[in-house]
Amino acid sequence: MNAIEFDRLRARLAHPGSLVTDPKRFEPYTHDATEFRRPPAAVLLAEDKADVIETVRFCREASIPITPRGTGTGLSGGCVPSEGALVVSTEPMDSLKIRAAERLAVCGPGVITKTLQDEAARYGLTYPPDPASYAECTLAGNVAEGAGGLRCKRFGVTKDYILGLEAVTADGLLLKTGCLNDYRGFSIGDLLVASEGTLAIVTSIVVRLTDLPGVGHTILAAFDDPGHAARTVAAITGSGMIPTVLEYVDGETVELANRYEKTEGLDRAEAVILVETSDRDPDVQAAEVDRICREHSCSYLRTASDVRDAEKLWQIRRNVSKAITDAAGARVSEDVAVPNSGFPALVEFVAAMNRAEPFKICCFGHAGDGNLHVNLLAEEAGEEALERLEPAVERLMEKTLELGGTLSGEHGIGLAKRKYLAREFDAATLGAMLAIKETLDPGDLFNPEKLFDRTP
Amino acid sequence: MNAIEFDRLRARLAHPGSLVTDPKRFEPYTHDATEFRRPPAAVLLAEDKADVIETVRFCREASIPITPRGTGTGLSGGCVPSEGALVVSTEPMDSLKIRAAERLAVCGPGVITKTLQDEAARYGLTYPPDPASYAECTLAGNVAEGAGGLRCKRFGVTKDYILGLEAVTADGLLLKTGCLNDYRGFSIGDLLVASEGTLAIVTSIVVRLTDLPGVGHTILAAFDDPGHAARTVAAITGSGMIPTVLEYVDGETVELANRYEKTEGLDRAEAVILVETSDRDPDVQAAEVDRICREHSCSYLRTASDVRDAEKLWQIRRNVSKAITDAAGARVSEDVAVPNSGFPALVEFVAAMNRAEPFKICCFGHAGDGNLHVNLLAEEAGEEALERLEPAVERLMEKTLELGGTLSGEHGIGLAKRKYLAREFDAATLGAMLAIKETLDPGDLFNPEKLFDRTP
Repeated sequence: MNAIEFDRLRARLAHPGSLVTDPKRFEPYTHDATEFRRPPAAVLLAEDKADVIETVRFCREASIPITPRGTGTGLSGGCVPSEGALVVSTEPMDSLKIRAAERLAVCGPGVITKTLQDEAARYGLTYPPDPASYAECTLAGNVAEGAGGLRCKRFGVTKDYILGLEAVTADGLLLKTGCLNDYRGFSIGDLLVASEGTLAIVTSIVVRLTDLPGVGHTILAAFDDPGHAARTVAAITGSGMIPTVLEYVDGETVELANRYEKTEGLDRAEAVILVETSDRDPDVQAAEVDRICREHSCSYLRTASDVRDAEKLWQIRRNVSKAITDAAGARVSEDVAVPNSGFPALVEFVAAMNRAEPFKICCFGHAGDGNLHVNLLAEEAGEEALERLEPAVERLMEKTLELGGTLSGEHGIGLAKRKYLAREFDAATLGAMLAIKETLDPGDLFNPEKLFDRTP
Repeated sequence: MNAIEFDRLRARLAHPGSLVTDPKRFEPYTHDATEFRRPPAAVLLAEDKADVIETVRFCREASIPITPRGTGTGLSGGCVPSEGALVVSTEPMDSLKIRAAERLAVCGPGVITKTLQDEAARYGLTYPPDPASYAECTLAGNVAEGAGGLRCKRFGVTKDYILGLEAVTADGLLLKTGCLNDYRGFSIGDLLVASEGTLAIVTSIVVRLTDLPGVGHTILAAFDDPGHAARTVAAITGSGMIPTVLEYVDGETVELANRYEKTEGLDRAEAVILVETSDRDPDVQAAEVDRICREHSCSYLRTASDVRDAEKLWQIRRNVSKAITDAAGARVSEDVAVPNSGFPALVEFVAAMNRAEPFKICCFGHAGDGNLHVNLLAEEAGEEALERLEPAVERLMEKTLELGGTLSGEHGIGLAKRKYLAREFDAATLGAMLAIKETLDPGDLFNPEKLFDRTP
């Protein structure tokens, strides 16, 4: 884009000041939370849907691709600018209306997930999906990537709470789907969830709220062997109970987290699991978890005495992300997920890979959902360092698919995993996806290069 | 189709006996639970997916449309044969595997919903969607129509429990989506849910199971005025609690149900509501429901003393469908749904329509979800009788959309409501739907005439 084009677009906007064309202001829009970096052609800090529509129409006429984004907490490169792309950030569109009597909220795309949860809590309601970045990430980002979170096995993921979406199509038209717990015709809204900004730009989101879950018991158990911990997870998920949260943290991660902030009793743990039982018969469930942990030779076991004590047990889990980031120059953060019964095999595969590779691999994740965040750490920063980790990533992907799993539980495919997408799906399914992309965005206007690897 | 074509198809099937070509055996496949009737060209009682694939390929080459069906309990004409269509019934494909450790079930399309629930219950698990026909309807039918049920406000609808689908495309290819609580790429599975057999034929369904909800209190309240009852519903949904079930039954329906089987205390009720509180603080919630009912001048109020007593209170609701069917020659059964706050306006609109029209209108429904089943009763049977009811149906649809609602909460669009679909959606959304149909089924092979009204 050149100065003349900038001026032509600016002239069409209701908020001309929202178009950022000074490269000195581009840095925050060059990346997400991965190592991928690319400068945008310009950035629209969209104030309203009318400006999004005008920008889409302009870009379509001028053949300039668009990459939509929120606060950039993503972990797959999904909102890193496509080559030559104008970035449309919907972060400023953060209006929020709770309609408590309808158990729903009408949210601007830029609403922060935690803000929605806090506001809903004032009415005794909640929005259950809780990605780790919930205090910073936007709802439209959650929708784009199909975000999950700690409580997803019990309460479901983003798509389970989206009632309706308003979005701008590649034709520059406003599309509006759903408003109730029902869709008619084809579920265009469900199709947009997890489409990673490749089909439309979301301008409004109606989410279903539900009542606040009751509090269960929190239990921490440490093990001398990651295999014992993983089999404990499988025994709990196979036991008939569905904990509200069931997290796994491996020994490498525990060590990093202990360096960051020391947690009592975990000095030499080779793996830790953290459980919050559901609020249905919590005493019975806690006793059952306790029994299963002992049966699997746990080396340390503690049930929180109350909510404040539970907070202390969660400390290690909360420190995980910062501890890993501090420890590495660069990291690849994979979020493979497998059926529950395959979880021990996945954990043991990663432990063996860690022993064999020259770089450190540490992992943690929403074990109750079969989701394992595998972090491969490089000492230096940058995209090149990541390339050296790629053969290990590929083996991880192959193992995951062999176990009947998925490349990404919640981070999305983006740039990071697009070369593996065709391995997860058969030709008919992938063909249907590509046909839909071609139909709804024939000019490849929205977020080209992402999700699908279409290099010949 | 002629005898030569029948033989050609038969020769390609692994189970040639599953192709029914004797018109004397066609009757069960000419209709669903509506008044629509049309004979099929032939019927495949599919034994396996290989035969479905062969049939799709054959029909595609021979330009013979296909209408998929299950047990035919639908209420929108969705599985009534399209003009000249071969019916593919997947009812015989009823294999069922519960994978309790993964909290999921892998189901053939012909599995009966109640069978799944019964089998899951053996593991302490459940599949929450519970359409009224759950003892007879198939899972693939639930998927095709996007079925809901009594507990849907609290636990969600069919789409919220579908993890993965396997389906045969119009190209005769097998498509397979999802297996976990996550999808990557575009959610083709979610697109198939509620697509009413117009995009693919479902051959396998993976559903998420959850733990059995605890039991709440059951409360029945009668009112002298439907408006009071409807405002009671709005007060309960607006109060901060989400009951497991909240049903409304109007006076006309109560009278018919009482004729069928008498329920104590409801002799002159003009409306009844039935509540099952959730299992979170049921005593507190029951007291709150009791208070709200009294505040809205209920004429009769009873809380069940135990589970057996609760069964007696539910009797009237269980009798509703049979009582209405017995009373009418033909009926149109609409299932409009509105946001909770619009429920009183909808109920009063229908009550006024009942007073003004020469035919009887009676209604009941999942009030907690804003869903009202409006039954317009004709004295004679047949499609012609229904045509005389159509102007009233049209006014009902207009009112529903004016209140921000949807044409169908759970029955689907089918033949019955296709002429109104374009009024619910804007041009961009409807355009996206039609473009997807054209892309995935360019020859209009699957269930033509349904869902969309494409007559010029």
